[in-house]
Amino acid sequence: MTLVAVGSVAYDGIETPHGRVERTLGGACTYIALSASYFTKVKIVAVVGEDFAQEDERLLTDRGIDLEGLERVAGKSFFWAGVYSADMNDRTTLRTDLNVFADFKPKLPESYKGAPYLVLGNIQPALQRGVRAQMNGVRLVGGDTMNYWIKDYRDELLGTIREWDFLLINDSEARMLSGEQNLKRAAAKIFEMGPQTLVIKRGEYGAILFRRDGHFIVPGYLLEEVYDPTGAGDCFAGGFIGYLAERGFDLKNGRVDHKELSRAVIYGSVMGSFCCETFGVDRFRTLTRREVDARFHEFRDFTEF
Amino acid sequence: MTLVAVGSVAYDGIETPHGRVERTLGGACTYIALSASYFTKVKIVAVVGEDFAQEDERLLTDRGIDLEGLERVAGKSFFWAGVYSADMNDRTTLRTDLNVFADFKPKLPESYKGAPYLVLGNIQPALQRGVRAQMNGVRLVGGDTMNYWIKDYRDELLGTIREWDFLLINDSEARMLSGEQNLKRAAAKIFEMGPQTLVIKRGEYGAILFRRDGHFIVPGYLLEEVYDPTGAGDCFAGGFIGYLAERGFDLKNGRVDHKELSRAVIYGSVMGSFCCETFGVDRFRTLTRREVDARFHEFRDFTEF
Repeated sequence: MTLVAVGSVAYDGIETPHGRVERTLGGACTYIALSASYFTKVKIVAVVGEDFAQEDERLLTDRGIDLEGLERVAGKSFFWAGVYSADMNDRTTLRTDLNVFADFKPKLPESYKGAPYLVLGNIQPALQRGVRAQMNGVRLVGGDTMNYWIKDYRDELLGTIREWDFLLINDSEARMLSGEQNLKRAAAKIFEMGPQTLVIKRGEYGAILFRRDGHFIVPGYLLEEVYDPTGAGDCFAGGFIGYLAERGFDLKNGRVDHKELSRAVIYGSVMGSFCCETFGVDRFRTLTRREVDARFHEFRDFTEF
Repeated sequence: MTLVAVGSVAYDGIETPHGRVERTLGGACTYIALSASYFTKVKIVAVVGEDFAQEDERLLTDRGIDLEGLERVAGKSFFWAGVYSADMNDRTTLRTDLNVFADFKPKLPESYKGAPYLVLGNIQPALQRGVRAQMNGVRLVGGDTMNYWIKDYRDELLGTIREWDFLLINDSEARMLSGEQNLKRAAAKIFEMGPQTLVIKRGEYGAILFRRDGHFIVPGYLLEEVYDPTGAGDCFAGGFIGYLAERGFDLKNGRVDHKELSRAVIYGSVMGSFCCETFGVDRFRTLTRREVDARFHEFRDFTEF
């Protein structure tokens, strides 16, 4: 079932211990959409400048992604550049040029408004909330945020996530948002804020899904080489919500299928792991659903006992 | 089947964000033996001074641990003191008084020499090797080491682990020993050194078991409060080898039961998690096998999908 994905479509300059690219397609919405497109129909809402390349557009349309909500305006696309530490657990932002993104006011095409699934990439909370308000009859909504919004836009953020079914953030963000160091207690606090499903991403260590009645933990996939972790968290989000949309999953019907939520976390992990295998979005040029499912089964093999 | 455990029996001074104890029973051998005693008969080899308290001896004998190999000599027992960081992922050693441990030359009682299982706690590699040499017909042998021996006693250590079936170390030790940052490649290098089963402990993030033909990963158990991580790695070792000894597991008979090895990793994780729930060895004063098995099943519940 159709998924609307909102966030940045951007160009990235990336340096990791394995190499460097000056400018490559990136942005949260791009990664979410590419990843989710392996599971369901995706419609994106974003803005790009005149520099948005035809070949990048083609990568998205080749994956069946609907670009009707991709606004094109005068100016340059959002540009981000960063460099990763030797172990790739830290990164330093070298440059953030908002460009056309500075005036982004997401406006949904009519054809988007009835979509049952909505995922909000990491952008200003008020914009996320505005998109939510434009949708009719959303079945499942959630998204990501970051330390900057948690710290400096707290009230706006709390007003936004109050309406969300799920929140996908990393461990340090969960600690910052809740004020609790321990993740179990952080989750309990976050449930009070609205989302009844919390997914905490732990990078190479995997992810935890929390619900009031229990939790599910998956370790990270062991790659022999992590070329570039950029976008891995967004690919996780795309796999997670993409799988739930594929299955027509509903949180609100009283009986929640926890195993389906767990499998969504696995698909999120699968997509995040593929993302790290090459620079930028390159892996999605060749990745097939068959490979995705094979890795899902690998997760079962190395976690079952 | 009987397990011989070798290492330090000591007193510890511990400070964590949750409190402080001036002096409490500790030492690698103590934790390994207490943990393994939930699964199998344990005989320890260690040395203590005249200050070794009767109530501490009783804690061990109450768990059925054979102390024939616990040497008592004039002087004081090994004493260690340390303080943990706020998130408990780091600790600073404040004091290490080797005392009677400085002249420890493990000598095995006759009744120990035929035991089929041997686990060597983190002590000088030459001592570990000397114990191995005193045993007849060991079925499964392995143990732990640390950065100090890896760095400054490398040849001695390599000569020791060459005879081991399994090696249990943490991720930074695996990287230091192998010279490889990536854990999969680190494992491949370590297989060349002898042990064909490598367990990498990752603290709160769980553990990975590597074999040449695959790996198994378990996430860490989520505790609501980690009171004191001291001894958790040794309790992991005790649960791992203790379970294998209970099952009469054999690595050398051609066909390796990988699921049994995986379950041993789970029992290791279970015992490590209990260890963190109170200060020092206190949890083992009340812990029952029923609780241990219940937590084993909890691991299945929160990892199955």
